[in-house]
Formats: sequence, C-alpha cells, structure tokens
Amino acid sequence: MLTTDKNRMDEKIKTFSKFGALEGGGITRLSLSEPALQARAEFKKRVEALGMTLESDDIGNLYATYPGTEDLPRIVMGSHMDSVRSGGNYDGIYGVLAGLEVAETVIKEDIKLRHPITVMVWTNEEGARFEPAMMSSGIVMKKWTRESMLSVVETGGTVTFGEALEASGWVGDEANRLNDKDYCAYFEPHIEQGPVLEEEKLDIGVVAGVVGMVNYDIILEGVSSHAGTTPQHYRKDALRAASKVILDLWEKLGAIDKELVFTTGEITCKPNIHTVVPNYVKFSLDSRHKDPEVIKRVVEVIKALPSEVYGCKLSYEEHWGRNTIEFDDRLLDYVENAANALGYSSKRMYSGAGHDAQYVSELLPAVMIFIPSKNGLSHTVVEYSSPEETWHGANVLLNALVEADKNF
Amino acid sequence: MLTTDKNRMDEKIKTFSKFGALEGGGITRLSLSEPALQARAEFKKRVEALGMTLESDDIGNLYATYPGTEDLPRIVMGSHMDSVRSGGNYDGIYGVLAGLEVAETVIKEDIKLRHPITVMVWTNEEGARFEPAMMSSGIVMKKWTRESMLSVVETGGTVTFGEALEASGWVGDEANRLNDKDYCAYFEPHIEQGPVLEEEKLDIGVVAGVVGMVNYDIILEGVSSHAGTTPQHYRKDALRAASKVILDLWEKLGAIDKELVFTTGEITCKPNIHTVVPNYVKFSLDSRHKDPEVIKRVVEVIKALPSEVYGCKLSYEEHWGRNTIEFDDRLLDYVENAANALGYSSKRMYSGAGHDAQYVSELLPAVMIFIPSKNGLSHTVVEYSSPEETWHGANVLLNALVEADKNF
Repeated sequence: MLTTDKNRMDEKIKTFSKFGALEGGGITRLSLSEPALQARAEFKKRVEALGMTLESDDIGNLYATYPGTEDLPRIVMGSHMDSVRSGGNYDGIYGVLAGLEVAETVIKEDIKLRHPITVMVWTNEEGARFEPAMMSSGIVMKKWTRESMLSVVETGGTVTFGEALEASGWVGDEANRLNDKDYCAYFEPHIEQGPVLEEEKLDIGVVAGVVGMVNYDIILEGVSSHAGTTPQHYRKDALRAASKVILDLWEKLGAIDKELVFTTGEITCKPNIHTVVPNYVKFSLDSRHKDPEVIKRVVEVIKALPSEVYGCKLSYEEHWGRNTIEFDDRLLDYVENAANALGYSSKRMYSGAGHDAQYVSELLPAVMIFIPSKNGLSHTVVEYSSPEETWHGANVLLNALVEADKNF
Repeated sequence: MLTTDKNRMDEKIKTFSKFGALEGGGITRLSLSEPALQARAEFKKRVEALGMTLESDDIGNLYATYPGTEDLPRIVMGSHMDSVRSGGNYDGIYGVLAGLEVAETVIKEDIKLRHPITVMVWTNEEGARFEPAMMSSGIVMKKWTRESMLSVVETGGTVTFGEALEASGWVGDEANRLNDKDYCAYFEPHIEQGPVLEEEKLDIGVVAGVVGMVNYDIILEGVSSHAGTTPQHYRKDALRAASKVILDLWEKLGAIDKELVFTTGEITCKPNIHTVVPNYVKFSLDSRHKDPEVIKRVVEVIKALPSEVYGCKLSYEEHWGRNTIEFDDRLLDYVENAANALGYSSKRMYSGAGHDAQYVSELLPAVMIFIPSKNGLSHTVVEYSSPEETWHGANVLLNALVEADKNF
C-alpha cells in the first residue's frame, strides 16, 4: 500500500498551528484575517515549491494543481483554513494539509496519475467572521450570490466581506470556480468533531453523507412582574415555561430514535433582570438525523407542543433546514477499501455537522473522510487528533485517490 | 373626615407624567437625567408657590417644608421621582405627589398642624442608572458612603453619579440629610406593584414591613460540544440541567409556604450558540418572605440541591439578603384607622419590593401606604392606578398625618 509521510504530515499541522496561535494553545484564524493570510502565504510557498500551479477564483478560493498524464478533469482534495474564535488546530486545516501531504507524496514519489490533482482551500467555511457558514461553496453552488455576500459585515466589526476579500489580494477569476467540467471528484478529509470514532475505537469514518436537519425557535410569552410583589400563583413566568418545554423535548425527541441529535443551544430571556419575572423566552432547537422520516417526527413533536405552558403562550418559528445529503457511492467504496487495505478499522457514518462537501456533492461526486477527535471536542482550543490519526487519514485519502484516478 | 382634592391629585400625576414621557405611554426618567431635572424644577415651582421652604442635602435629596404651630420636629412624606427604563407614571412619583397634595390641602385649607411637614424626594431609588437601588437612603443610613457612590458609573454609559449630581445643581448641605433630631415620623405612599389589592378588591394596603429576602446564583457546568456530532447520551448540557433545577425549585420552594415568592429572573448561557451544547448556565434565584424561618427553609432547599444534574456540576453563590423590616406600630394604626374612617377597605400586608422606607425605619418611625396596581404591573409603561385610587391614598395619608401630628 502507498502511504504518506507521517512526520511530514505532523510537521504541516504544527507549522500551520502557528498562524493565529493563542497563548496556551489553539488558534483564532478568522476568514481573511491576518493569520489566515499568513496561512495562505505558507500554502502558496509550499505548493509552488512542489511545482503546482496556484489559481484563485473570484471568492478567493485557492486551487493548487499538479498535472496528470492524460487530458482529464481534475480530482480535488481540500477543506478550509479559517477557524472559529478560540478554535483548534484541526477543524478545516487538516483537510487542506492532508490533501497537501497526499499531493507532496504523489509528486515526490512520482506516482503517475492519469488525472491532474488539485489541493483546494475554501474561503470562509466557518462563518465566524462573515455569516453564513460555507459561504464560498454556497456561492459556487448558487445558494446565494457573490454580490449579496460582498456586503456582509463582519460580526462585531465594520469590515465587509467584499473589503476583506479585496484587501487579501486573492481575488481571481470567476472562471476558476470549482465546476463539473474541469473537475470530476472531490475528497474532503476532516476531523469527526464528535466522540463516536474514539468511543468505538475506530480509525476512520467513511462519511456516507451529511444528516438532514431542522432548526426552530421556540418562544414562550408570559407576563413580566415584580419578583417581590407577585404571588407565585399569579405568575406567568416564561423561563419556567421554557424549562418545562426543554425537558419535555428531551423526553419526547429522545424517544424517537437513538441516533437523533437535538440541541437547545441558544436562549434569550427578557427582561433578564433578577428582580423581574421573565415575560419572554426564546430558545433554539437544532435537530439532525439522516432519515427524513425521523426529522418528520421531530417536526410533529414541535407542532404538537401545547399552545400554553404555565399560563405562557407558546409559539415557534421554523428556520432553515436541509435534507440529508448522500455522498457518492463509488467514492465511499474507494475510501472504505483503502481503509481496509491499510488495516485501519472504519465505519460508515453520517456527518452531523455541515461541510463544504455537502454543497459540492450537488456538483461532483464527493466524499468525506473522518479521523477521530479527542474527547469528541471541536471548535475549542483543546481540539486534538494524534499524529497517528492525521497520518491514517492522509493514507486513506492517498489510496482512495489512486483508486478514483483509475476509474474516473 | 378630611380629604384632599381628587382633581388636583390627578392633575399632579398627569403633569409629572410628561417628564420623560415615551411615545405610547410610560416614561424613562432615570435619576438626575434631563427629564428627572425637569420634574425637580416643577416640584420646586410648586412647593415655593405653596410657601414651602425647599432644601437639598449633599446627595441631592429634596426637602420642602411648611412650618407647624409649635417648635417640633418635622413629619415627612415622600418617595422618589426617578423611574426605571420604560417605566410607568406611578412608581415613586406617586408618593411624592400624594405628599405634595396633602401639603397643598393642609396649606390651602389652613389645617393647623403642630409639627412642620416636609415633602421629600429621594435621589436615585431605582438604581436603574446608578447602582445600587435606594442609593441615597442607603447613604443617609450609612449602608455605604457618599464618597464610594460618587464614583459609580452609569449603566451603559460613562457619567459618574458624582458628575451627574454636581451637574444637577442640587448638591446641598450634608446637615440637611434626614435625621432623627429634625424629623419624627416618615410616611411613604406607593403603588403596590403587585396584584393582591386588586385581586382582593381592597382600596388600601397598610404596609406592615418589607419582607426579608435571599439572593442566590445557581450555576450548572457541563461540556460544550457540537450540536450535530455529539450523540445525545454523551452530552452534559448545562441548559438542560438548569431547566431541571428551575422546575425542581418551583416544586420544592412552592411547597414551603403559599406566601413565599421566588423568582429565577436572570439567566446566562454560554456559549449561547444554537449549534453548540451549552457548557455553562447561571441563573438567579430571588426569594422573599416575611418569616425568617421560611427563608431558612429556602436556604435549606438550595443547600440540598444535588451536586450533579444530568452530568453537569451544580454550584451556587449566595449574594446579598436582608432581614424582614417591621414598620412602626403606631403609624400602622394611624394608617389603618384613617382608611377605616374614610370607608376604604384595607389589609395589613408586607411589601415584597424594597423601598427607601425600609432604611428610614432604622432611623425614624416609618410606614408605607399602598394603593392598587392595575393587573399588579409595575416597572412597565402600562403601570396604572386610577384617579380614585391615587386620591384614596392621599386621603389616608392626610388623616394619618393629622393623627400622627396629634400624638408625636
């Protein structure tokens, strides 16, 4: 079996961990920020040293390409380099660097591939600086227009995405955008961001798709009154009512399916003063499962919520959702076969998180490769995957790429 | 029986409602703000027109005095003129204007009183602009020093209390502060701010004291993880745990005593992002009852909370509390007798809210008179007491004052 270089893979992780490094570990490398531009510069230096041709498109996505032996469309590998605030050294960047390590192996070991190979960097996957997440793959897939995104102002600041993009010096040609004429397959290695691989002692997640989801806000409206003067039985306390609904949702949604995940992550309470009975509480409900029938049952539970809880009016608002995305069967087989042949344990699983690959899958055959996340943690400075694990992922990518190169 | 002038009482309410008026009703009249200074100017104009002498102390508290027939200490009536943000036209200002209406009646009808009478305005009772609440009565009663309060910065701004006080032009002599040589009794009329009088169809609350209270923060610490990738049974969700504790508190505290009030009014959730399982939730618990034994049982319930809830660590922090304050028995009788003699229904009750009177009661015989609050609402633009109700309160004050004048 072909393998990449373990030390070289680890060195890549360690070097890129410097761009936006925080004291005590982790990084803040918001999209198109100075540390993100430093990471791009290092990427440029490395791909050019390998003899790859670097292009960018009109959204600053990077494409570093090495020619194949035949006139065929490219096979692309990649992910993003931006992080959330106080994020880790693996989410996103690992996919870019695994792609780069695979390219370096192919080039330095002179592995003959029919297709050109491209290592790709997506601009602003996290949406931590400029909302929404997966902004650039969304533009490429026409989920929204480039024009509408240019005027997005950074969270907590004044700079627009358009200004940051222009200042980055990475605005290229629209014609360079990922497309289905010049490209034929997409691989995105990524950390799992969850505990399943670690808990089940598996090396590789063969990612069969991205689970569908629904997002709701649930609102309780009561009556604000004075903490000292309102007898308990007169109260219409929106926080008490919200607490009841949160626990009921855990009970009812928890009974639907053990693979269903649901989260009430965000809560707003008004007036949120310790001496005043809350009259308004809104909380978010994010729920995800690969089976649309299960998601339907989630929606049924929400729609069956009582209209009044402890005297408070209950209402809900549906926000965006997505259907389950299925990745490409052939690419899934190549990834699974590669893992098996390398002697790595693996399982097919769905991603609960969104990734650029889910948009790409509408354009090209696409697949993702997961490696374990220590303690299932991500979007935190303690995010960690071992050198062994990052190397395993790169090896699986290399062998799956070779298989795709033969068959596509 | 003596009565005040109903139309004149109502006109006072309507006129002072203009200072800081909001479109659609209610006021924002933060302490020492421009609208608050307009209200003070109107107060000055009116008391001087009545031939009263206006003094201020070194915290800007106002004292408008009309002489009695004998050389005796003054009887004082009053409250505050500042409001919370988006507050109403009664909380505080009613006590000042009822006092003013009583003074106007005494002066215009030439009712001979042995004691001088003083109508008083407390600076910054609400604490909405400068924390803490009851700042000036707290200074007078040496709960804290004037010096320490001068450097308090306004909430959400940059001006200090000292700067606002200086700019107001109302800094007078420290010797003018309320004291037990120059004053012999204190009356504070106020809206109930709760639903009891209205529900029980009573005209007057004879306020026997201010209930004791304890304040806690309850903290749940879990583990932050990704909404899409963390199976439900791995989660340590601090908001789920907080919801459970809030409902348990309702059950356990609710069983202690029907007059016990408790409020979880303020909640903080971190990171408070809809795609992340909350790892930290803190909520406030404010609990009040006139019987210290009941408060002890509240504390026992808090101390008996489990140290872990749904995998989250539970801890709590005790904040300030206060013991129950009892008002003066003789003044209580005068208020109650006045109500009875006027044909108004009344009951003795405790105030759940804090008032300047609770500090004053440590210095002078003090009492409060409550009038009904429509729907029990206060600290809101829809706060309302009818012209009938405001007049009833003033009539009770007048007759109780006359009784105190005879006996003190």
